[in-house]
Amino acid sequence: MTKSLSELVSQHQELIEKAVDAVNTRRNWSPFKDSPSRKFYPEGRPEEGKAAFEARIGQKYEIDQPGITGWTGAEVSPYTGKQLGITYPLSDPDILVDSAKTAMASWGRTTAEERIALCLEMALRIYDRGFEMAHSIMHVAGQSFTQAYSGSGPNALDRGIEALAYAAKAMKDVAPSGTWERRFGADDIVLEKKYRMVPRGIGLVICCASFPTWNAYPAMFASLATGNPVIVKPHPIAILPIAIAVEECRAVLADFGFDPNLVTMAADTPEEPVAQKYIDNPHVQIIDFTGSPRYGGYLEKTVTEKLLYTETAGLNSVVIDSTENLAETAKAIARGTCLFSAQMCTSPQNIHIPKSGIMTADGHASFDDVAAALVSAVDDIANAPAAAAGVMGTVQAQNSVDLVLDLMERLDGHEGAQVIRRASPYVHPDFPDARTLTPLIVTLEAGNEEIYSEEHFGPVLFIIAAEDAEGAVNDATRLARQHGAISSFLYSTDADFVDWAVEEYVRSGMNLTINMHGAMWINFAAAYSDYHVTGLNPAGNACLADLAFVASRFRIVQYRQPASSVASIAA
Amino acid sequence: MTKSLSELVSQHQELIEKAVDAVNTRRNWSPFKDSPSRKFYPEGRPEEGKAAFEARIGQKYEIDQPGITGWTGAEVSPYTGKQLGITYPLSDPDILVDSAKTAMASWGRTTAEERIALCLEMALRIYDRGFEMAHSIMHVAGQSFTQAYSGSGPNALDRGIEALAYAAKAMKDVAPSGTWERRFGADDIVLEKKYRMVPRGIGLVICCASFPTWNAYPAMFASLATGNPVIVKPHPIAILPIAIAVEECRAVLADFGFDPNLVTMAADTPEEPVAQKYIDNPHVQIIDFTGSPRYGGYLEKTVTEKLLYTETAGLNSVVIDSTENLAETAKAIARGTCLFSAQMCTSPQNIHIPKSGIMTADGHASFDDVAAALVSAVDDIANAPAAAAGVMGTVQAQNSVDLVLDLMERLDGHEGAQVIRRASPYVHPDFPDARTLTPLIVTLEAGNEEIYSEEHFGPVLFIIAAEDAEGAVNDATRLARQHGAISSFLYSTDADFVDWAVEEYVRSGMNLTINMHGAMWINFAAAYSDYHVTGLNPAGNACLADLAFVASRFRIVQYRQPASSVASIAA
Repeated sequence: MTKSLSELVSQHQELIEKAVDAVNTRRNWSPFKDSPSRKFYPEGRPEEGKAAFEARIGQKYEIDQPGITGWTGAEVSPYTGKQLGITYPLSDPDILVDSAKTAMASWGRTTAEERIALCLEMALRIYDRGFEMAHSIMHVAGQSFTQAYSGSGPNALDRGIEALAYAAKAMKDVAPSGTWERRFGADDIVLEKKYRMVPRGIGLVICCASFPTWNAYPAMFASLATGNPVIVKPHPIAILPIAIAVEECRAVLADFGFDPNLVTMAADTPEEPVAQKYIDNPHVQIIDFTGSPRYGGYLEKTVTEKLLYTETAGLNSVVIDSTENLAETAKAIARGTCLFSAQMCTSPQNIHIPKSGIMTADGHASFDDVAAALVSAVDDIANAPAAAAGVMGTVQAQNSVDLVLDLMERLDGHEGAQVIRRASPYVHPDFPDARTLTPLIVTLEAGNEEIYSEEHFGPVLFIIAAEDAEGAVNDATRLARQHGAISSFLYSTDADFVDWAVEEYVRSGMNLTINMHGAMWINFAAAYSDYHVTGLNPAGNACLADLAFVASRFRIVQYRQPASSVASIAA
Repeated sequence: MTKSLSELVSQHQELIEKAVDAVNTRRNWSPFKDSPSRKFYPEGRPEEGKAAFEARIGQKYEIDQPGITGWTGAEVSPYTGKQLGITYPLSDPDILVDSAKTAMASWGRTTAEERIALCLEMALRIYDRGFEMAHSIMHVAGQSFTQAYSGSGPNALDRGIEALAYAAKAMKDVAPSGTWERRFGADDIVLEKKYRMVPRGIGLVICCASFPTWNAYPAMFASLATGNPVIVKPHPIAILPIAIAVEECRAVLADFGFDPNLVTMAADTPEEPVAQKYIDNPHVQIIDFTGSPRYGGYLEKTVTEKLLYTETAGLNSVVIDSTENLAETAKAIARGTCLFSAQMCTSPQNIHIPKSGIMTADGHASFDDVAAALVSAVDDIANAPAAAAGVMGTVQAQNSVDLVLDLMERLDGHEGAQVIRRASPYVHPDFPDARTLTPLIVTLEAGNEEIYSEEHFGPVLFIIAAEDAEGAVNDATRLARQHGAISSFLYSTDADFVDWAVEEYVRSGMNLTINMHGAMWINFAAAYSDYHVTGLNPAGNACLADLAFVASRFRIVQYRQPASSVASIAA
């Protein structure tokens, strides 16, 4: 330990101030580079990270947390099809909870500034392991190397720091003390009041398989910063990235003299899931869940007397009314849906287009013209192996491949449905055994809602004929109100139409991206600037991050006494 | 309508700024006078208020809200024992919900500043009806005139404005728009982003019988300010004060061109309670509950997928370790417990004293000396009819009288218990038929926890022998963790002991008042300065008010588009 806690607080003061400024102004900011380009890093860093990952293969991932009862691990690389053979400690839930409770006492007595500085230090140290993290994410989740580096690394850490900024604001709002003076009858009463922030209880963070760090960092840091210990439960097929994060958090805590059991990992197996044991424990007071609508919905309907923040999934849609440039629009959508083979919570699935076609700067384009443009744009990515590898990466689970292929078979010859692009593997240039699948694209006449009114978790694009542009917006927004939506997209050159549509999306609690072309992924969510999930539709009950995401994670307890009494006691 | 909405916003701008300053600094502030003294009001105002109340007797209280299916009202004055004979509209729950939904649309498009200004206007107009409100509170809840005026009038309105201050802060935290610029590859992306606050849904406010306005205003204003309509459900034996408030809120809304159905009243009867119908309605998204631990606890265990804020009740305690002045301490506690005949959520019930007695500035006082001092201090109030009337008022429900008298009978001759002051009515100087009861005081040896580990809703004081002062704190804090506590009190001249004890109270989520003597009621809760309820123990799950009380009542929806697209659409 080379540095004192107060030095750490000073060192990170500017960082948290900049983060608070960023969330206040919603401007672009990050303390990180989100590209794996060698030019940004010390020489050898990329190789060290890869070597660190490779050294884990077939080994125990030692985390010196309490209550270890065994070892588990069944991760299979979607790139190689091989088991990673890494095993992780299984801990007794009661012992992890007890350890967290014990650790909580001292953590609750730190200042907000200290906890925030320590969380920032955790984020910076996890960032320093970015290449190791990127290879880990690749080989458990299946993202491309570039996306694994940026999206699951600095972009996810930024979201954690964004949550810290909100925690800082919410805690700063609580005055530590106040003097209160008032005359009652003949008495001048002067009271000295103290206000103490008290953590709520143990936070459980349940992570998803395909993007494990993305919601984990905001939840972990929001709970930790407000004084709560966290137990992180990784998905059993994507433990490694969480193990790295937990290890680094524990190291920071230990380095500064805190009980590392403020952050522990609750690994489990698909056969013996452990989440509910923690959820049912009365000391677990905060639950952050990312995962399936099925389990998320179950939690929403059953969890009481605890805080519950969920992000599940929904039907992300694109409506095209008109566009300046159909090829650019098709390219933008194709990139969005191809990114990580549509396994992102923000991946578009349903494209709603007027059955009579759309207006473009080059004149009218029929429904089939638009569909053809989308197929062509997807082909441009799918048929170029280097592009496909960089954009699509792999499909994490065989289940997703089966689901898409089954769907394709079901829709071949289905009344009102036409498969206009078949899903098939592409050959990854570096990993010939990679599990890949290029998008299935299907056009659908009206009246096939049973097909597109559910999320198909895999590379599928439905192009759905709407009565007209308003009908397209009505379809997209109605489905979102019923089934949820995280990202929504609209293309229109008609200002009045956009104005009308915006109100429909707002009313339906849908975040909307309008007329997005160019090099930015249309479903790119910028920390500090884009609110992720509205909490207003079934895709989740929380926004990451806003004041509501943090303000209830701590409570305020006050004590007051006459100023004269304070003096006499002190004297 | 003499004034525009923008004029109203300007007019109340300073008021909300001062309220925000007050909650930030926790200083003493109020826009109101909280004394009914004539000198503060225009000539004739007190008489007009009394006359307005009296004119209601035996009449229908017309509220022109939709869905009226009948009339109800069974209020009985605890001062006269007579039925008030006022009846109130019963409305069909589905119709009230539909009306609120309809009203919500336009309300959601107002600005935060407009909604806050309108809520402030409601508060000011309710304040102007303060004397009518005071007589109404007296004759349904049974508070003394002075307390009815201040505690259920300006002090309660201040708490509403306090909630508005938090709503203002939480909404101000959301930037309405932002420009985001970043380079992606060869593209300079500039996005214009808009952030819209969206109300959560209909707010249901369930009021208690004995202090109906106290938590109603914060809940109503917190929901209204954040864009949600409210349906206020008064307790069936205390409808009148809520009817006045609802009527005034509706008048303000109508005056400024808004749908008055943003605020409606859901009266019901004890035989056919209606709350659950609203709670089960999916459009009701926010529930603020004040009332019994039984129903509040049921809601805490059953309500999911909605916001729920509860305040119920707990075991408020006093621990005496030592005191500068035993007579003053006894007087302070006696006044606290006598105030409104201990029917306040902040009334102390359990006095924990070391069995060996305490130290005072005048030397040692035995357990029995302390008990005798408490009896004497209560007698000073109870035996002076004018003092008794001003402090104790009446007992609202015969049930509370029966409960105390039954308890007294049960404890007469109970092993380890000694009734040292008998509960009996005092004769109210102005209302000879008033339902009154002076406090029962009982000393208890250790091992009688089954007696004092529940709230007895009525004038009862237990003086409980503890092993020593630390044991007294341990007993008080353990009981609060198990059964809840809203106010807690400690007397000690030992600074080290206070420091130790404070940590125990904080750890138990208990707000604490230390060494309070003098003219201020020890259980006086000052809006803007005292956080009411911690949410950390079973006495309630929410704090009124803090950021957490408001931040989740609205959500944020965003839309974003390239700056170039905005320009081209606008052109």
